[in-house]
Order: sequence, then C-alpha cells, then structure tokens
Amino acid sequence: MSMSRTERGPERLVVIGGDAAGMSAASQARRMKGPDELEIVAFERGHFASFSACGIPYWVGGEVTERDQLIARTPEEHRARGIDLRMRTEVTEIDVGGQRVRARDVESGGESWTSYDKLVIATGARPIRPDMPGAEAPGVHGVQTLDDGQALLDTLARTRGRRAVVVGAGYIGVEMAEALINRDYEVTVVNRGREPMSTLDPDMGRLVHEAMEGLGITMVNDAEVTKILTGDDGRARAVLTEDAEYPADVVVLGIGVRPETALARAAGLPLGTHGGLLTDLAMRVRGHENIWAGGDCVEVLDLVSGQERHVALGTHANKHGQVIGTNAGGGYATFPGVVGTAVSRVCDLEIARTGLREKDARRVGLQFESVTIEATSRAGYYPGASPMTVKMLAERRTGRLLGVQIVGREGAGKRVDIAAVALTAGMTVDRMTALDLGYAPPFSPVWDPVLVAARKASKAVRQRT
Amino acid sequence: MSMSRTERGPERLVVIGGDAAGMSAASQARRMKGPDELEIVAFERGHFASFSACGIPYWVGGEVTERDQLIARTPEEHRARGIDLRMRTEVTEIDVGGQRVRARDVESGGESWTSYDKLVIATGARPIRPDMPGAEAPGVHGVQTLDDGQALLDTLARTRGRRAVVVGAGYIGVEMAEALINRDYEVTVVNRGREPMSTLDPDMGRLVHEAMEGLGITMVNDAEVTKILTGDDGRARAVLTEDAEYPADVVVLGIGVRPETALARAAGLPLGTHGGLLTDLAMRVRGHENIWAGGDCVEVLDLVSGQERHVALGTHANKHGQVIGTNAGGGYATFPGVVGTAVSRVCDLEIARTGLREKDARRVGLQFESVTIEATSRAGYYPGASPMTVKMLAERRTGRLLGVQIVGREGAGKRVDIAAVALTAGMTVDRMTALDLGYAPPFSPVWDPVLVAARKASKAVRQRT
Repeated sequence: MSMSRTERGPERLVVIGGDAAGMSAASQARRMKGPDELEIVAFERGHFASFSACGIPYWVGGEVTERDQLIARTPEEHRARGIDLRMRTEVTEIDVGGQRVRARDVESGGESWTSYDKLVIATGARPIRPDMPGAEAPGVHGVQTLDDGQALLDTLARTRGRRAVVVGAGYIGVEMAEALINRDYEVTVVNRGREPMSTLDPDMGRLVHEAMEGLGITMVNDAEVTKILTGDDGRARAVLTEDAEYPADVVVLGIGVRPETALARAAGLPLGTHGGLLTDLAMRVRGHENIWAGGDCVEVLDLVSGQERHVALGTHANKHGQVIGTNAGGGYATFPGVVGTAVSRVCDLEIARTGLREKDARRVGLQFESVTIEATSRAGYYPGASPMTVKMLAERRTGRLLGVQIVGREGAGKRVDIAAVALTAGMTVDRMTALDLGYAPPFSPVWDPVLVAARKASKAVRQRT
Repeated sequence: MSMSRTERGPERLVVIGGDAAGMSAASQARRMKGPDELEIVAFERGHFASFSACGIPYWVGGEVTERDQLIARTPEEHRARGIDLRMRTEVTEIDVGGQRVRARDVESGGESWTSYDKLVIATGARPIRPDMPGAEAPGVHGVQTLDDGQALLDTLARTRGRRAVVVGAGYIGVEMAEALINRDYEVTVVNRGREPMSTLDPDMGRLVHEAMEGLGITMVNDAEVTKILTGDDGRARAVLTEDAEYPADVVVLGIGVRPETALARAAGLPLGTHGGLLTDLAMRVRGHENIWAGGDCVEVLDLVSGQERHVALGTHANKHGQVIGTNAGGGYATFPGVVGTAVSRVCDLEIARTGLREKDARRVGLQFESVTIEATSRAGYYPGASPMTVKMLAERRTGRLLGVQIVGREGAGKRVDIAAVALTAGMTVDRMTALDLGYAPPFSPVWDPVLVAARKASKAVRQRT
C-alpha cells in the first residue's frame, strides 16, 4: 500500500524515529497545529517509543525496578494525542526529490512509500560495536535500547558466575560498572584510554580511577580489547587484550555511540566530520527548507570552541524536538548550541564537566591557564561536608572561562551548572569570583568551590598576561 | 597610651571589626604587602574574631557540636600572620579629619587614639531587638554572636519546659525553628508577615508555611508581638500578641539585622536609605579615598533593580574583605553588586531565592510575567526524586529574567545558582530554555526544573507582548 498526500487535505509531517527528539518534535508540532491543519506520521523501528535510554543503567542496577518506568509516553498515548505513530516500522529510504520516505514493516517485511510536506529525521545513534571476534557472542551486551537492557537482565538472571567485564570507561561504562556492583558482581572495567572518563582531562580522570578502585571496581587502563573469547557453549567467557585475559561471565559494551545517519547519507543530506547531520540554528538540515533533524543523529555547535561536535544526550534531544516541533508547526525557535555539560555518577562519586578540556582548547588554538582546587560541598564544620576537586580553564589574556571539571561526592555534580551558565554568557573567571551564589552552611562553604577555583584561575590569568 | 603614625615607618591600615569582612580585608592586605610596608591593626570589641554567625543555628541545633568549629581563624593565628588584632577593644570614634580612631579597652575602660593612613570599617550589623516590655528578660535570646549562641545553649540546658517561641520567620527564624525541633522542643514561630520567609512572595512563603506545619512547627502569621511576659522569677514565660498569648520556656528573637553604623554616622560618613554605608565599586566609602567599608555594615548595589539594598550574608562579607584588602594593599579589585541570592533550610525543606520578588519589581517600575511550575529534583523514575516548586519572573517585552524562587526538598536549594548566574549575565528566559545544564537521571529530569520554569515564562512573555 502506498500513501500519497491528498491535494487539498492537511499538510503531512513525517517523523523518522520515535524516541526523544522525534516524539518531542511530533508532540510540539501537534500543540502548534491541530489534525485539520497538520497530519503527523511517525515511524519507529523498535518496540518502544519515548523511552529514557539514560535510565537503563539504573534499571539494570535495580534502582529502577520496572522497565515501564523508563517509558515517558506509550505509543497509545501518542496516538491519543493525534500522532499516527507506527511501531516496528523502519524507514529504509528518504527520497528527498520526491518528498517521500519508504518504510518497511519489520514483522511482515512489507514496504510502502509515504509522502511528506515536512520531514523530521531523528534516527538517533548506534552503539559502537568493536569489530572483533566474539563481539556478537551471547553474553555480550550493549545497553542502548530497552531490549538491550532486558537481554542483559535476562543474562544476569541466568548467569551463576559473578564476574563482569565492562568494555569502555565513559559515562555508559562507569554507570554500568555501578549497576553491576549493585548486583554484587566483581567488576572489571577495561579502558583503552589513559584514565577512565576521557571526557575529563587525565588528571581528573585519575580521581575517578582511584574512587572506582575504592568501590572495589578493577580498573584496567591503556588496554585495547582484541577479542572476546567464547566457551564450548559459544557464550562469552573472557575479554582478551594485548596484555591479558579477563574472565567474564557477562560482558557489557559501553564504548560510546555514533550518529545513526546511514539513511541521511544515502539521501545525500549534509553530514559533518563526526558523521552527524548538519543543521542550521532552527534545526533545519542545511540547504533543505522542509527537513529538520535533531537528537543523537545531528552535530551541534559547541559555543566555546566554535566547532561542531556530537553529543548524544537525552536533554539535547528533547530541546531539539521542542525547537523542531515549533518550527515545523509554523512557529519560530532556535537551538543556539551546547557548552558540553555532562554529569555522571559511580555509586556516591559525582563526576561533571562542561566546556573544553585542555586538549580541546589546544586543538582550537586557545591558550589557557589551568588551575585545580580542593574544597568542600558544605561549610567545613557542617556534617556531611565532603571534599570535591574543581579544575578550571580560563583563556590567557581575556580571562574568559573555557571549562570546568568537578569530581566529588554529594553536591559536586550539579555545581557544574554554575559554570555552564557562565560559559553560555561568555563570563570571565574574574567576574565569576563575585558571583552571588546561594550560601548557607548546609549548602556551601562561604566561598563556593566554583568561586574558589575562579579566584585561583583569575589570579593565574593576571600573573601570566 | 596614644599611638601615632611614625613618620618614616610603614603605612598603617586600621580595621574596625574583626569578623568576616574586616579580617578578610586584613588578611588579603597582608598577602599584598609585608609588615615592612604596611602595618595592620584590627580592633574587635567581642571575644571572637572570624567566626561563622551563619553556623550558630546548627550549633544550637546540635549538628555542629563544638563552638570552636565555627571559628575560622583564632586571634593568635591572625597575629601569627602579622595582623595586630586587638580583642575586646571597641572603637568609639572615627576622626576622619585627623585620620585616627579612638578605641576603648572593654575590660579596663582605658581609651587611646590610633592614627591611620588607611581605614576599613567592618562594624557589621546588629540584631533588631523589638522595643517592647520583656525583650531584655532572661530567657529571651538573640543569635547574632557566639556569646549569644552559648547563652541560648545554657538556657536550653537549664530549662525543663519544652516550649519554645521564635519571633520572626525569616532565615534566622526558620533556621532556629529547625534547631529547636532538633532539640525536641515544641516550637511556635510568631511572624508579623502574611507568610513565613518574607524574602519570598507570599504564594511561595505559603509552601514553607505548610511544610513547617508538616514538621510539627506551629506557625502564627499576621501577628505582631507586643510584649514578652515574665514570671515571678523575672524570666520570660510567654509571648504576647494582640490576639493571643504563647507560653514559652525560651524565646528566640530572629527578626533580622540592621547595619551597625553609629560610628560611621557620627563621623559624617555617607549612609544610604537602609542605614548602611555607601561605597563605590572598589568598596571605598563614597568621597573618601582612604576609607573602605564592607560586610554587614554597607549597602550593596542590586544588579537587577539598580538600587542599593542591605544584605547581611557572610559570603558577601568575605568577598568585600577580599576586594578591600586588595585595594588597600595597593592592588585593584571591585565588587560589582549582588543579585540577591539566598538559600536556607528547615529540616529537609530547602528554600531559595534570587533576584526580585513581585513587589520588588513593581517598586522599581518593572512590568513582568510570573509563572510557577512543579517538577522533580531527579528523573521521575529515579529513587529519591522529590517535588519542587519553581517560581520565575521575567520582564514584560524584553523577557529578561528578573527573579527565581524555589521551594523543595533535596537538590532544590542550590539550583537557584543557575538563575543567579543567568541574572548576572542579564539573560532572557527564552535563552535560558536552551541552557546546557547537567543531566543524568540521578541529578535531574531531562528538563531541569529551572528550564521548565523558563519555558513557561518564555511562553508567557511571548503571549503577552
């Protein structure tokens, strides 16, 4: 069956991808225009729409008990709001000239074309699966989708052994390490980088490394996984690196993701150096008036470096969807870019970053001062005051804030928001020293840790220039 | 004995007041210049220097166990750093023309003059003591100084009855209510305002009211205390208002403070409408090249309203001291002003505000949109997600952020920092909707509560203009 646009009916908005960006866009477009003006058709190849991928580690770890808690809105709820959401339907081709997409019913294999007036591409990201023997063996799990999470939980329920190896030590890796610790596994994290959390500078990653070991996690750095060894039953039994073999009853891959843009590439749409779709500030695919893209499949402008980057985060996907839906619905909104904020947790360790690392700054030609301070989350005399380390980068001469990294305990992570807003505003570290931040002994020392770092950074800038 | 400046010796910096602002100034000036260049003499009339007044409620409540934990630096430590700190010595006159101050030894009553080249006035604030019968009776306590705190603790240790009345429902009042709840008192808070926390709009104060009642605190609003009744032993036994009588075994006054500027007034120095010293941006007293003032005795520029206000907070006092010490030490620094951030806590309730309330905005001629939203501190599915209410004011037409108030539980209070930085940067609520804040399920929903409020405020601005 082929669906073509009726000549005098409402416009049709087609959305490819039923997760955060796609369904936010669809919902917002629906708020802007009713069904008599705009028909909305959304295609999702998976079993779930609008789920929180970020929540999967906490479901696997047992802190979130039910899979359905991770589902923000069911397909039925979307349909009740006037969105024709077609599950298990994969778009296999975008015909830009013909303004139509070809979709395949995953179960039946049947294909048909659907025409569009406006198109939203929200195809997300795909996990990096290392191209090595054993990567597809039973007992090796990614954690990108709810199906992945369920499969991992099934493996954990079946497995008698308690040895888990996590490959990768980025956000997903460390969060999965926590999840498996919570499930009483002996956890080894194998990391190709010098230290875990390569989104931090290595000196700050070192603090994460030490804290993870304090939690009983075995951290192996500078180790490239070459092979996943399987047993007689075909299941994964160990992770092999150039130097060693790590026995594993379960292997979790947390190596990161890449933009899922095969469809867009085939359609001739513009991709950036990170493989993501390139859009303008209104989230329109560059050069295409009636095609928008958002979420994990696009590159975003980094406001600090002035360059495009790929950041797969639900919070951006939701914002993109909001902007796209407003624009596709006839309104006006923009997404100005990111400053690169991220926050994570391994048990009670909080890890946060925003802006540029040292190597990012160097890569874009910025000279900088870098300072690191230790302070406490609350007044030193107040119970529960915990130490945190704050690293701050400021541009040489101008003193402009370039980045902040924080590692600490309770109260450390969200302090990065102070720096995120200051970065957005292009604030200097000297101006930051006078920021009027919330102070009371249960919340902060009289000089907030971020201000202590700003004072030191300001001094470094003055002394050097 | 009189001390006069030696003709060829080092310059002399005299500091009046040995608490946060004064001793920060002295310490920073000492860092800038050694004793051969700058002599530093500081006078403190009390028994303690450099103590945390903000910590007193937590000491009274038992969370901080030792008084000395609240002392950041002892007089001996200051002296070891080359500051001639004279305790129990009260400055009784500033002779601006003669560049000298008269100081009295509190114990002996002996007086002498000390000349200065540079002067720092850091005389702090004095608690408002209601002018009514019984206000000075035993069993009635202020909580401004460590001596006050000790006297209150002594009363609590001696008192068999468990009924406490707190007069005033600002920060000090609600913190003292918590302290006394922690000490197992039946606590009644008597408040002349419509709702507690008059630094919030009444609709947000109402939430604090309800939460306090949920904690077992009896909250009496719209009640002016007329008298403190005393028993046959002369001790306070009840608090009387126009309408009722509240039996009290102990009475705590938490009505707020006023700048302590009697000395400055007598010396003819410029005071503002709130009774605080007026300074320039370098914290110099206006019109006086060699006199600085900071801390609770000065008025500060409110960057949002463009008017002066009085804010007694240790965090400002420390910043002022830093700026003054740098300038008095021959360097250059400024204090640009405040946005009016404050955060407080009553048991697990967190209360925060920054910028203007509705009545502040009206008073300075600003028209605004006001929105209130409810959201959660973490992803809704994540354990420990707690509700919070965020109120946001944005200027009509321009959409500029004017103020934020937050009432919630864990994770609510310090979120106000996001708004504090945005206010400082003059950000619009529309720009705020795209802020790149830290997101992960244990830290925030995918739309941070502050972003949810910004979205609603942005929409309100667009719809009205």
